[in-house]
Amino acid sequence: MASSVITNPRIPTTRSPSFHNKEPSAPLRRVYLPQTSRTPFPDFYFSTRYSYAAAVVKCSSSPEQATQRRHRPPYVPNRIPDPNYVRVFDTTLRDGEQSPGATMTSKEKLDIARQLAKLGVDIIEAGFPAASNDDFEAVKMIAQEVGNVVDDEGYVPVICGLSRCNERDIKVAWEAVKHAKRPRIHTFIATSPIHMEYKLKKSKQEVIEIARNMVRYARSLGCEDVEFSPEDAGRSERDFLYEILGEVIKAGATTLNIPDTVGITLPAEFGQLIADIKANTPGIENVIISTHCQNDLGLSTANTLAGAYAGARQVEVTINGIGERAGNASLEEVVMAIKCKGDQLLGGLYTGINTYHITMTSKMVEDYSGLHVQPHKAIVGANAFAHESGIHQDGMLKNKGTYEIISPDDIGLERSNEAGIVLGKLSGRHALKMKLSELGYDIQGEQFDNIFWRFKTVAEQKKRVTDADIRALVSDEVFQPATVWKLCDVQATCGTLGLSTATVKLIDAEGKEHIACSIGTGPVDSAYKAVDLIVKVPATLLEYSMSAVTEGIDAIAATRVLIRGEDNQTATNAYTGEQFNRTFSGTGAGMDIVVSSVKAYISALNKMLGYANGPAIGVEAKKASVSA
Amino acid sequence: MASSVITNPRIPTTRSPSFHNKEPSAPLRRVYLPQTSRTPFPDFYFSTRYSYAAAVVKCSSSPEQATQRRHRPPYVPNRIPDPNYVRVFDTTLRDGEQSPGATMTSKEKLDIARQLAKLGVDIIEAGFPAASNDDFEAVKMIAQEVGNVVDDEGYVPVICGLSRCNERDIKVAWEAVKHAKRPRIHTFIATSPIHMEYKLKKSKQEVIEIARNMVRYARSLGCEDVEFSPEDAGRSERDFLYEILGEVIKAGATTLNIPDTVGITLPAEFGQLIADIKANTPGIENVIISTHCQNDLGLSTANTLAGAYAGARQVEVTINGIGERAGNASLEEVVMAIKCKGDQLLGGLYTGINTYHITMTSKMVEDYSGLHVQPHKAIVGANAFAHESGIHQDGMLKNKGTYEIISPDDIGLERSNEAGIVLGKLSGRHALKMKLSELGYDIQGEQFDNIFWRFKTVAEQKKRVTDADIRALVSDEVFQPATVWKLCDVQATCGTLGLSTATVKLIDAEGKEHIACSIGTGPVDSAYKAVDLIVKVPATLLEYSMSAVTEGIDAIAATRVLIRGEDNQTATNAYTGEQFNRTFSGTGAGMDIVVSSVKAYISALNKMLGYANGPAIGVEAKKASVSA
Repeated sequence: MASSVITNPRIPTTRSPSFHNKEPSAPLRRVYLPQTSRTPFPDFYFSTRYSYAAAVVKCSSSPEQATQRRHRPPYVPNRIPDPNYVRVFDTTLRDGEQSPGATMTSKEKLDIARQLAKLGVDIIEAGFPAASNDDFEAVKMIAQEVGNVVDDEGYVPVICGLSRCNERDIKVAWEAVKHAKRPRIHTFIATSPIHMEYKLKKSKQEVIEIARNMVRYARSLGCEDVEFSPEDAGRSERDFLYEILGEVIKAGATTLNIPDTVGITLPAEFGQLIADIKANTPGIENVIISTHCQNDLGLSTANTLAGAYAGARQVEVTINGIGERAGNASLEEVVMAIKCKGDQLLGGLYTGINTYHITMTSKMVEDYSGLHVQPHKAIVGANAFAHESGIHQDGMLKNKGTYEIISPDDIGLERSNEAGIVLGKLSGRHALKMKLSELGYDIQGEQFDNIFWRFKTVAEQKKRVTDADIRALVSDEVFQPATVWKLCDVQATCGTLGLSTATVKLIDAEGKEHIACSIGTGPVDSAYKAVDLIVKVPATLLEYSMSAVTEGIDAIAATRVLIRGEDNQTATNAYTGEQFNRTFSGTGAGMDIVVSSVKAYISALNKMLGYANGPAIGVEAKKASVSA
Repeated sequence: MASSVITNPRIPTTRSPSFHNKEPSAPLRRVYLPQTSRTPFPDFYFSTRYSYAAAVVKCSSSPEQATQRRHRPPYVPNRIPDPNYVRVFDTTLRDGEQSPGATMTSKEKLDIARQLAKLGVDIIEAGFPAASNDDFEAVKMIAQEVGNVVDDEGYVPVICGLSRCNERDIKVAWEAVKHAKRPRIHTFIATSPIHMEYKLKKSKQEVIEIARNMVRYARSLGCEDVEFSPEDAGRSERDFLYEILGEVIKAGATTLNIPDTVGITLPAEFGQLIADIKANTPGIENVIISTHCQNDLGLSTANTLAGAYAGARQVEVTINGIGERAGNASLEEVVMAIKCKGDQLLGGLYTGINTYHITMTSKMVEDYSGLHVQPHKAIVGANAFAHESGIHQDGMLKNKGTYEIISPDDIGLERSNEAGIVLGKLSGRHALKMKLSELGYDIQGEQFDNIFWRFKTVAEQKKRVTDADIRALVSDEVFQPATVWKLCDVQATCGTLGLSTATVKLIDAEGKEHIACSIGTGPVDSAYKAVDLIVKVPATLLEYSMSAVTEGIDAIAATRVLIRGEDNQTATNAYTGEQFNRTFSGTGAGMDIVVSSVKAYISALNKMLGYANGPAIGVEAKKASVSA
């Protein structure tokens, strides 16, 4: 019966008639799990007559379907016209960027924000403007350049800035986001006993007073879209939570975000928290409830889905699940789970995400944040769609449905053997331009010329230039910080004999050449020491990694380094309020690993030097008084 | 009220009296989510009076508590004397090793099996003996050497071998595992319409017949512990599932494993599947139900917990969550969630795992499988317990409870600034031996001498030799395949000028020296080409990566390569039955990246050459007839 619909999931199919057939084929016992006040897992009755196979077929779609989306309802801050629509709030640029070593430049953040808009996220949390001048400028630039591009359907992402519950932070956040067509301020204060006692040193009533006043202050600035988060909600006392949430609703909050700050809840527990808030908070019907789940026990995706099912209509997520400690719920997992299961099991929930851009966005965030994704990461890991390659791999290809539930096309992933344009040494400028466009890059002028020249060099030495090669060249050429120092030449000798020696020639901002040589424990150590002799800026190398971007011994090597400078590059942690030293990543690509390594180091140094000399915060922001 | 117990979670505390206080402090509405036949998330009532803070306090424990475990009930194949005890079945060596590129040598598998026994896993699935001679020998060796070490409490891990539903596979599996004190055969056959139609090309009745006969055959060999899995159970028709499971119970199966093979279920859906099986399968009360959740939607941990809550008393997991595609539920997440929440929210569930060994096991599996863990991986990622470092980091340290729910001590992770013995250039053999022992290594004789000699070389050039440095040296020295080729010397020149050249001198198994030089696109490419000129075994480089193991420009670099040889190194995929080419990883460590890279390549070549010349399957196994 059901087998008639169990075809290759990549081929779209209609629901089997048996899907709606409620008559049991044989008498079966219904089972309810014990209903107790501590039951953390569901006792719903999931019909035993329901065809599992039919449920799976819908998960995948044809390439044409992948880009089709249901209509996105119009944006009203505190209300969603369609009760089944779930807003996706991406905080890669704020919570994600807060991860150790994930510091990004303003330009990198802008690139990611543009990509997030392609993906169709409803809200981009662009940063914590009060953290530093650099953070302020990045949020402002994103508000101006991404927050004003309205598409044919009227879509433009909301641009959101985080602020602590004080007037200065809120004022600074507003100065940064107000340039967007749809600006939002997101303010928060801790509400759990442990945080109020140890971090805030304030009473419940003081905390309520601050929250109410600051939400009101944000609205008074002209911001009509204000999100409030009770930090550590998962460990807060329930009645206090309802009270403070009710007060901020009265003060004008439009979205209430419920964070599981320490990532300790089980799915049913978090779902119940959302359901309880929905049932007990006065005025809750006038605002949107949001989830924000940390991943400390590996449950963030399940918790987010449980929250949405229980009534949350905004989910806070990051690309690749990055974030402090074990990170956040990842956009790709939550969105694909809703896509696969929303209709059948989540009461019709859907999002406005164009999943076709997931792979590209994931790779960009991986590159910029330097936080690599493990090969077995769900949806976007290198192995997520890979099968042990071998003699009869085509057997798998013939019936992908046996082990594959999501089509790679759905997330914009092309298998290497199905790629479109193949580049080789005879390919010209037009072919390269087509390939760049296929990969989602729009590169013109001198940058294109540079990439073309480097592409030809690679093509001379490799039979086939792959997509990964091209991506590495683009990263190396385009996604680089403003140049202070530039590598002219490097030469190194090394080996088991020891006495590694490297000579480097750098060009400074005025075009003057500097040469130095050094010995070291290896060619990279020697070369870095030679660079230090010229640049003379103290920096500690925290991480160094390299990988070949494609198969083959002659592949391009991509190097990434992470450095930390002295005390002059600090920012403020939003939650702890503490100053911390920024760390800076740099990347370099090349067929010679020593050259690639030196490029990466110089890129990181340039990023650090650029940050130290960053622009000042706008005048208005500086005038803002500090309160609370 | 509750705030009296909200102290630092690292300090053990008793439950607050409020925990048991069922009187509400204020009238609150109870809320039940809508109860429909498609409800995928819970509608249980989670008491609003329950103190969340109190729930969290128990999650962490003192170092002394971390090694304390509840009593493990005695092992009976089909019955657990304590209804709350959950068996942990680790399949890192079988399902995990099946990941692309994760091939391990027998020696590596044995090391991991020993570590899994330290961790206290109840069952080690040691491999798929019929896959190849090498797999057979690995399982046999583990059965002999790990499956016979009984500790003071009577604990010895069950050693399990996978087999398809045919007599030859089962016979071979039995020949491998029978040497263990507690041997188990795990056999499986697909039961979903899509798999039966496209892969097996068999009818339901034929599939039942095969399953019944093969379980009976396994028992007839003398194996008293037989596990059966209906592959792709998540997409199988329910009544057919109950029928086949009932039949294999009658035939003598002792554990029924329910795999969500394609990782498509939501937690409540999977929990319901387990509950339904428990309610509808004849004879189910006489066997153990097991979960096996793939992670394609990032829900494997939640699904596993839902399954256990619904009645499963065995959970199949892997270290770091490795496995094909997006991997499996990870041991560390499932075990820590049960440890944190078992008492309060999962009806008292507990495991026998000594969580103190989690970190070490995770690192060993990462090293051997070559599948790196992302920095934001829950529990074992590099950032899982890291906070953005900076000026006032000690603020966080003063009250870890604000952002940390599990103590690093619980999983055997020491913060670098809390490490015990600090090694430097003046440290002697005794200090190194102490440090190795602290890190869990027991290394003697020549291997110790070699490590000591290399440690002194590193200490000459670095101020402080860290734990990571020592681990890298041990990996490089001890965890290496049998030597066929050995690196004697390498010398390379490279740089932006091009014309990279490398000369290598290798020593073969007979001690003869071979020298070759080559040019290439960089120093590593040149050196690898020179090695190829000597070794003359065709190999494709699939992956190349390198990272510094510690901070600082003079750190040790660890290189990993993955190569694939020709058709003579094949194995059989358990599920598809297809032959595939094995891939081989190699690692090398050194302060010179070129030297480190060449070592890694030679290590991979040696592994590949060793595999090709591997021992033959035991005589009995060869005689086994092929059936079904």
